[in-house]
Amino acid sequence: MPKTVLSLLLALVPVALLAQGKADVLLHRDGAPPRWAIAIHGGAGVIPKTMPEATKREYFQSLAAALKAGQDVLAGGGTSLDAVEKVVRTLEDDPRFNAGKGAVYTHDGRHELDAAIMRGKDLACGSVAAVTTVKNPISLARLVMEKSPHVFLAGGGAEAFADSMKVPRVPNSYFDTDLRFQQLQEELKKERGEGPGNPDPKHGTVGAVALDVHGDLAAATSTGGLTNKRFGRIGDVPIIGAGTYANNRTCAISSTGFGEQFIRHSVSHDISALMEYRGLTLQQAADEVIHKKLNPGDGGIIGVAHDGSIALVFNSEGMFRGAADSGGRFEVKIWE
Amino acid sequence: MPKTVLSLLLALVPVALLAQGKADVLLHRDGAPPRWAIAIHGGAGVIPKTMPEATKREYFQSLAAALKAGQDVLAGGGTSLDAVEKVVRTLEDDPRFNAGKGAVYTHDGRHELDAAIMRGKDLACGSVAAVTTVKNPISLARLVMEKSPHVFLAGGGAEAFADSMKVPRVPNSYFDTDLRFQQLQEELKKERGEGPGNPDPKHGTVGAVALDVHGDLAAATSTGGLTNKRFGRIGDVPIIGAGTYANNRTCAISSTGFGEQFIRHSVSHDISALMEYRGLTLQQAADEVIHKKLNPGDGGIIGVAHDGSIALVFNSEGMFRGAADSGGRFEVKIWE
Repeated sequence: MPKTVLSLLLALVPVALLAQGKADVLLHRDGAPPRWAIAIHGGAGVIPKTMPEATKREYFQSLAAALKAGQDVLAGGGTSLDAVEKVVRTLEDDPRFNAGKGAVYTHDGRHELDAAIMRGKDLACGSVAAVTTVKNPISLARLVMEKSPHVFLAGGGAEAFADSMKVPRVPNSYFDTDLRFQQLQEELKKERGEGPGNPDPKHGTVGAVALDVHGDLAAATSTGGLTNKRFGRIGDVPIIGAGTYANNRTCAISSTGFGEQFIRHSVSHDISALMEYRGLTLQQAADEVIHKKLNPGDGGIIGVAHDGSIALVFNSEGMFRGAADSGGRFEVKIWE
Repeated sequence: MPKTVLSLLLALVPVALLAQGKADVLLHRDGAPPRWAIAIHGGAGVIPKTMPEATKREYFQSLAAALKAGQDVLAGGGTSLDAVEKVVRTLEDDPRFNAGKGAVYTHDGRHELDAAIMRGKDLACGSVAAVTTVKNPISLARLVMEKSPHVFLAGGGAEAFADSMKVPRVPNSYFDTDLRFQQLQEELKKERGEGPGNPDPKHGTVGAVALDVHGDLAAATSTGGLTNKRFGRIGDVPIIGAGTYANNRTCAISSTGFGEQFIRHSVSHDISALMEYRGLTLQQAADEVIHKKLNPGDGGIIGVAHDGSIALVFNSEGMFRGAADSGGRFEVKIWE
């Protein structure tokens, strides 16, 4: 479908909602139809440009399918929270990305998954770390936010909470994939001094950020963490203000990269603070943090601001990403 | 000793250090001797003013001993990192506070301890969560920072890391105290509908922040978490940017209170950001976050700024706290 036709159709959706009397749909000051916007990522890092064309196509198809899933929620008047959860579930179920099915292996040959979700309207948030049998960790994080008095549950306790919530469970082997098993073997060989290891073991996360037609922002991130991780290492993903943050006053951010660096620099809250306290745009604030405070190669962020603007900023070689909005934008990219 | 005499003696220490040729000791622009400053806390919340005089005296003595331990490090030219670790170890070993010995009980009648430490010079940091056999969790957090490639280790993994570091270990029952056991019973009775529960189960943490004569800031926080906690709940203490933060450009902060609120509001990083991006003083920034963004009763923070100013800000009934500096200040307080 040509872009202009798609754009026209999408533009009609909010008008139709208004006609149904959904009064909480915001009209922009200039009288333009209400905006929605969404950005997604599937990890940042060293992504070889030499990958086979067929593999590239598969990645683009996966990203487009996840983006479309979020777009459908937002264009239908749904909430940003539902949209980001839907996108992240789609990427968790896709074995190509390091989250849910396809998560990397720990040192012990198992999978420990982390996830977080945040709602910009009221700063409500939920995180889980080191879960091992929950098919979609992002949905457990949402239940922590909505059904528990806490914001962060870890390990066996998070599993016990999952029992009480009756979310879909799987054996830990459900997360197995040949590619990730091979990456663990490369890392273990490296430890024994027998090989160069996986060229980029640090990176791999999925995430989504969105603005809905009601004016609300949300962010969600999920990951299998580091290949060969041990010692119950927790990265930036479930740390509110580091890997995941949403605040209606400013923006929604989801990070991907060298988690320890994103924690030290409180990356996602820092971008929000630069917007709120220094008056920077989302793009300016993200550039400042990713290009001036972090080190080259550390990773990147996706962000959506309260005005619907989108930023996709990274200092690594590539970032699996996509963006769509009510103005007809719909794109997926890996490099440049 | 009169305050002025003490002040004079303390003022001589840095001069003596300079005479020894320790060139990294900073002189202030106005030519005044190098400053150090320290603040400590032992938790915030509902602290009954009706407590017996003898109990009050014990708390004041405990706080003064911990403050003195940190003061000695700083006045001797030691680092802020050593000072905050020393103070927090002292408070962890003191059964009166909810950290280390004297930690509250989980739902299962055990103890799970969290701690974090951060150095303002390079944003290096280390956190541990749900450790059960490490006598001084703050020292394990420091080892995570200095001896591991990670910043956050949890649960059994953190214990395994402790094995490899040979830190002092204790049986979990070492942390038992009658007072905390009784508080758990009150909470369990409340769950069964048989009593009002502990009037203030949310609060209880220890922490320290310091500026040393080299101009470096550091922060440390440690806690036993919530009485009757379950599901592997992690609070704000080990979350860098929420309960603990230090950045030489701005301030060092340690929080105490309703952890979930401190995570949602990225309290400690937000205070730093208000200083850096809006030019507020530490006191103004802390007042803004604690009194305007949080809810009454949520808790408080202690902070030291890069200029040596100290802020002790809380919106609860009381906060066990103390402050000392190279100008001769030395005080411990609970209320007002």
